[in-house]
Amino acid sequence: MISNDKLVVNAIRILSAEAVQKANSGHPGMPMGSAAMAYALWGKQMTYDPKHPKWCNRDRFVLSSGHGSMLMYSLLHLFGFGLTIDDLKSFRQFGSLTPGHPEYGHTVGVETTTGPLGQGISNSVGMALAESYLAAHFNREGFNIVDHYTYAICGDGCLMEGISHEAASLAGTLKLNKLIWLYDDNEISIEGNTDIAFREDVPARFRAYGWNVIDVANGNCWRKVNDAVELAKDSDKPTLIVCHTTIGYGSPKAGMASSHGEPLGADNVEATKKALEWPCEEPFGVPAEVYETTAAVAEKGAAARAAWCELYDAYKKAYPELAAEYEAWFSGELPVDLLNDESYWKFEGSTATRASSGEVLNRLCKVIPNMIGGSADLAPSNKSNMKGRGDFSAEDRTGANLHFGVREHAMAAICNGIYLHGGLRPYCATFFVFSDYMKNAMRLSALMGLPIPYILTHDSIGVGEDGPTHQPVEHLAGLRAMPGMIVFRPADSKETAAGWYCAMAGKRPVSLVLTRQNLPLYENSGKAALKGGYILSDSEKPIPDVILMASGSEVEQCMGAKDLLKEKGVDARVVSMPSFELFDEQPEEYKESVLPKAVRARVAVEAAATFGWHKYVGLDGQVIGLDQYGASAPAKLLFKHYDFTAEHVAEVAEKVIG
Amino acid sequence: MISNDKLVVNAIRILSAEAVQKANSGHPGMPMGSAAMAYALWGKQMTYDPKHPKWCNRDRFVLSSGHGSMLMYSLLHLFGFGLTIDDLKSFRQFGSLTPGHPEYGHTVGVETTTGPLGQGISNSVGMALAESYLAAHFNREGFNIVDHYTYAICGDGCLMEGISHEAASLAGTLKLNKLIWLYDDNEISIEGNTDIAFREDVPARFRAYGWNVIDVANGNCWRKVNDAVELAKDSDKPTLIVCHTTIGYGSPKAGMASSHGEPLGADNVEATKKALEWPCEEPFGVPAEVYETTAAVAEKGAAARAAWCELYDAYKKAYPELAAEYEAWFSGELPVDLLNDESYWKFEGSTATRASSGEVLNRLCKVIPNMIGGSADLAPSNKSNMKGRGDFSAEDRTGANLHFGVREHAMAAICNGIYLHGGLRPYCATFFVFSDYMKNAMRLSALMGLPIPYILTHDSIGVGEDGPTHQPVEHLAGLRAMPGMIVFRPADSKETAAGWYCAMAGKRPVSLVLTRQNLPLYENSGKAALKGGYILSDSEKPIPDVILMASGSEVEQCMGAKDLLKEKGVDARVVSMPSFELFDEQPEEYKESVLPKAVRARVAVEAAATFGWHKYVGLDGQVIGLDQYGASAPAKLLFKHYDFTAEHVAEVAEKVIG
Repeated sequence: MISNDKLVVNAIRILSAEAVQKANSGHPGMPMGSAAMAYALWGKQMTYDPKHPKWCNRDRFVLSSGHGSMLMYSLLHLFGFGLTIDDLKSFRQFGSLTPGHPEYGHTVGVETTTGPLGQGISNSVGMALAESYLAAHFNREGFNIVDHYTYAICGDGCLMEGISHEAASLAGTLKLNKLIWLYDDNEISIEGNTDIAFREDVPARFRAYGWNVIDVANGNCWRKVNDAVELAKDSDKPTLIVCHTTIGYGSPKAGMASSHGEPLGADNVEATKKALEWPCEEPFGVPAEVYETTAAVAEKGAAARAAWCELYDAYKKAYPELAAEYEAWFSGELPVDLLNDESYWKFEGSTATRASSGEVLNRLCKVIPNMIGGSADLAPSNKSNMKGRGDFSAEDRTGANLHFGVREHAMAAICNGIYLHGGLRPYCATFFVFSDYMKNAMRLSALMGLPIPYILTHDSIGVGEDGPTHQPVEHLAGLRAMPGMIVFRPADSKETAAGWYCAMAGKRPVSLVLTRQNLPLYENSGKAALKGGYILSDSEKPIPDVILMASGSEVEQCMGAKDLLKEKGVDARVVSMPSFELFDEQPEEYKESVLPKAVRARVAVEAAATFGWHKYVGLDGQVIGLDQYGASAPAKLLFKHYDFTAEHVAEVAEKVIG
Repeated sequence: MISNDKLVVNAIRILSAEAVQKANSGHPGMPMGSAAMAYALWGKQMTYDPKHPKWCNRDRFVLSSGHGSMLMYSLLHLFGFGLTIDDLKSFRQFGSLTPGHPEYGHTVGVETTTGPLGQGISNSVGMALAESYLAAHFNREGFNIVDHYTYAICGDGCLMEGISHEAASLAGTLKLNKLIWLYDDNEISIEGNTDIAFREDVPARFRAYGWNVIDVANGNCWRKVNDAVELAKDSDKPTLIVCHTTIGYGSPKAGMASSHGEPLGADNVEATKKALEWPCEEPFGVPAEVYETTAAVAEKGAAARAAWCELYDAYKKAYPELAAEYEAWFSGELPVDLLNDESYWKFEGSTATRASSGEVLNRLCKVIPNMIGGSADLAPSNKSNMKGRGDFSAEDRTGANLHFGVREHAMAAICNGIYLHGGLRPYCATFFVFSDYMKNAMRLSALMGLPIPYILTHDSIGVGEDGPTHQPVEHLAGLRAMPGMIVFRPADSKETAAGWYCAMAGKRPVSLVLTRQNLPLYENSGKAALKGGYILSDSEKPIPDVILMASGSEVEQCMGAKDLLKEKGVDARVVSMPSFELFDEQPEEYKESVLPKAVRARVAVEAAATFGWHKYVGLDGQVIGLDQYGASAPAKLLFKHYDFTAEHVAEVAEKVIG
């Protein structure tokens, strides 16, 4: 007699295999191998209410091995999150709720978009960090209103990726004890047995990180996994539960690499059903006992949420101000009207935009108290510290300044996780050139639409002596081409405030690309920068002889060139273009008013790759840029050497007119 | 009485501090703290001949903490590699031989460009892997002509980076026992004590990777480090020597974060000289005993090289064919005239360019026997396997197929290291979207000018069901903007052969951007693709009504549109544009012949971000692209949904003409 618990486990396996088979595309092996692990969590250990999937105090679950998406969808169906059998039948089809990899914001119950390996587990560190910070901030004796676990399932792929090292090492350093990873150790990778490339002693590695490690010899048995999770909950460290599993469990391809990334084949699906003594013959059939079992789990979850609501009501009475703050933080709304707060937009004198950014950050965190963030060990250079807000550590959970260490990739993924948790507004910082190291996590911010400010300083050859390894050239183009990412390279302090405003008030990540060196403050800059591009200094005639445009530090050379050109009787307009994306979104008339189609004499200036600027200068204009690597020397000398001078801009402008 | 050995150690410290002081920029703390470690290597353990810095069998040395570049320059000066005191005095100045970070190909004795943390140690894994492979291939009893160690010095920054995990885990799996890393464990990071972010047990972590670990309690003492290196050489595993050191050793700022990234101050430099009992008062003064000591080291090195030359001469007599091969491999020359080998350019039928690439790779490795490479666990999908060439492993050093595991970042950095070692032609492979994970290592290939083929398959929404996390959009733009990187997106098999030709015959890395789905074979494609852009199908009139251009799979839609337009009496030219970079390098007349300035009706088509194409279509043309993320669905449906059809291209062309 197969128990109801085991029936649910098998339901996960069979629905997953069937959906992949029907789609004729996907990964059956992972869901079949990790079904027991998932059931221990979803059926026994996790607290959640499927009717209220956004309940703040739910346990968080991340499927880091995102290719095993059918595991997620089978769970979401069986445990009552609203996915139907028809949804499972349209796995990997256009517009379905069951895409190839789990997508946040698309399918209810999916806490984060996964697929690129290592991202999910790193998100989970952010979620656990958020829980820990919020608990320290909000909980009072007898009122643990923030009190949940964060779980992730990952495979060898996630643990081979470098980001897993960064995230796990930091989680260990910070003793995030309510973080629990289940490692689906099936010893199979795409190219064959994991032995061919991965012989490390994973438990020893995680112990070295300061983790608690539990070994489950039979990870195909939900009871054994369940016992391990029980133990993990008591640890004062994060826990890795190593579950020895069988990829493609129950199928004739069990234990084989061939079960990883392609359908099992109709015959093998049938054979699996037989081997697992599955009672339903028809495809996608599920016995009633399965739904009865999961309904009971949902009831337990509803009761847990009801108890929490009761507790919260009492908390609200005992601590009305804290409760108001709790609700405000979780609302996701900005608590302040920055746009009309003139003090926010006020600056004086010439400064580096990294310094302006530090000033803006410190203005912001006074009015947006749930900001949290830091740098990958470059805070003094990135100006990313919030003064007086303390340091978050294993010993002090109340500090809002995070020390990520030299771990750019995990930093970005952790910020994604903090934001996804809810309640907090994370940001992070590094040198612009090292955005390379965290590119895919930034992409996931953009894909998920998470409004995370990326403070990226030292943005050009203005870096100076550190030389070409530290001087970004192609990075502006790379990020500008990324859908959903706002790249904002301000020309002065007021534009820097505009960039930060976009990041805090908008719905997308913003790359704030900032100088090391000082820049002037322009009279006409400011909120106009929110349009992405605007006339900073206009021609005298309504139709200029030439349009000079630039972003960031090179606006200065354009302004200088305008004066030089004036002496020669040439009437130039200067357009500051901090953000291509925002400018492109403006109405056609506005864009025409800034860059009239009739004016073909156009010069763009940027101390970076010319790539992408021709959209604004066309075939008849010219781009003054840097299509080579820089050099190690004082910055001023480099600007001169590479022809970023007002004189050169004026010269090119004359040529373009001529 | 200070020994001569210690005098040299102090010379490193003082020259480094003085040079940083003179430049008023740089990192004095690291060179001062690791001078004893460096001396144990350069003065005692390493075998090299400064008069022949490219001697194939020299020990390799990598300064992974590249910011400590003055350590490298002090060593290169003191040990006779030709750097003068004047060179040290122009540290970090324009055009000097002593830039801010060590640059390969710029300063004799620098084995690789470092600075971005973690890259150098990963390069060193590639160097040790190359040594091990070459030794297995060339050595015969009594003739260990390939027989050297690879050393790297790294700091906590390198070991926090994810890439260090990837590289070290693979080195342990492969038992690269002639690889020795010296960890400069000074407990100081930029934001303060390493404890704030980095509490892992590094020795335990490396033991978990299968490394030998040796602890040196006093890493400021060269003798202790020397003893540890001696031990390390006997290990059958790679070795990490943990050297407990003092950042800024000898200076009043010793042990302080403030000695990391800024000059000590003139007073502190003086105080250091006093504390170390330095005998020279004048700046950059070095006592004669120092040069006498290092001259003796150079003599020992010259003798070692002479002995090797003698051995090699005997080897050449005993194994003339092997010796000829050895010389051919190390010459760096292609052993074959691919351009005129018509069999190389011959293909039939429609195939996916990833499959064509697999075919080309297998043609190449038969005539270029020193090819070595593999995939980040996607070989079956990337078609990156060399048939019959075996697998490289701890047990078998003769296999040429590398299993990198799911470690894209280290993979690319390891390939850089293999190439830098000399003797081999490495390549690597992953999904195009995961180029994100290895971006900075690709940048270093480009910055150093290493001709490494990057096989990047699954290049667009053509990925299909895997959905947006796996569908590249912005990646073409990002890599095209990178100086020194050739992006090559072929439209058919013959263009794929052209892309591979560029990679193997050229001096720069090439990103081969390849489809998952089948593409037609065009009559007029082939070697013309080496020009980057060419007329694949011309208009009937000398001046076409419209130019349709595309790269890769979208050439097909352009060809279809041309036919549709013809029916409507519109005379179109189709330009295949596999590589922007190569096209831009053509003479003006050629470019004008392909894209005449007079023709402003231009349409570009690419299933990727439109970003960058306006350079060729200008303000009057149009780009059909994808400025959003894709979706999970069968590929054919996606092409239709996102308007990549011949019909749509024809429609837009008519609009553009109108």
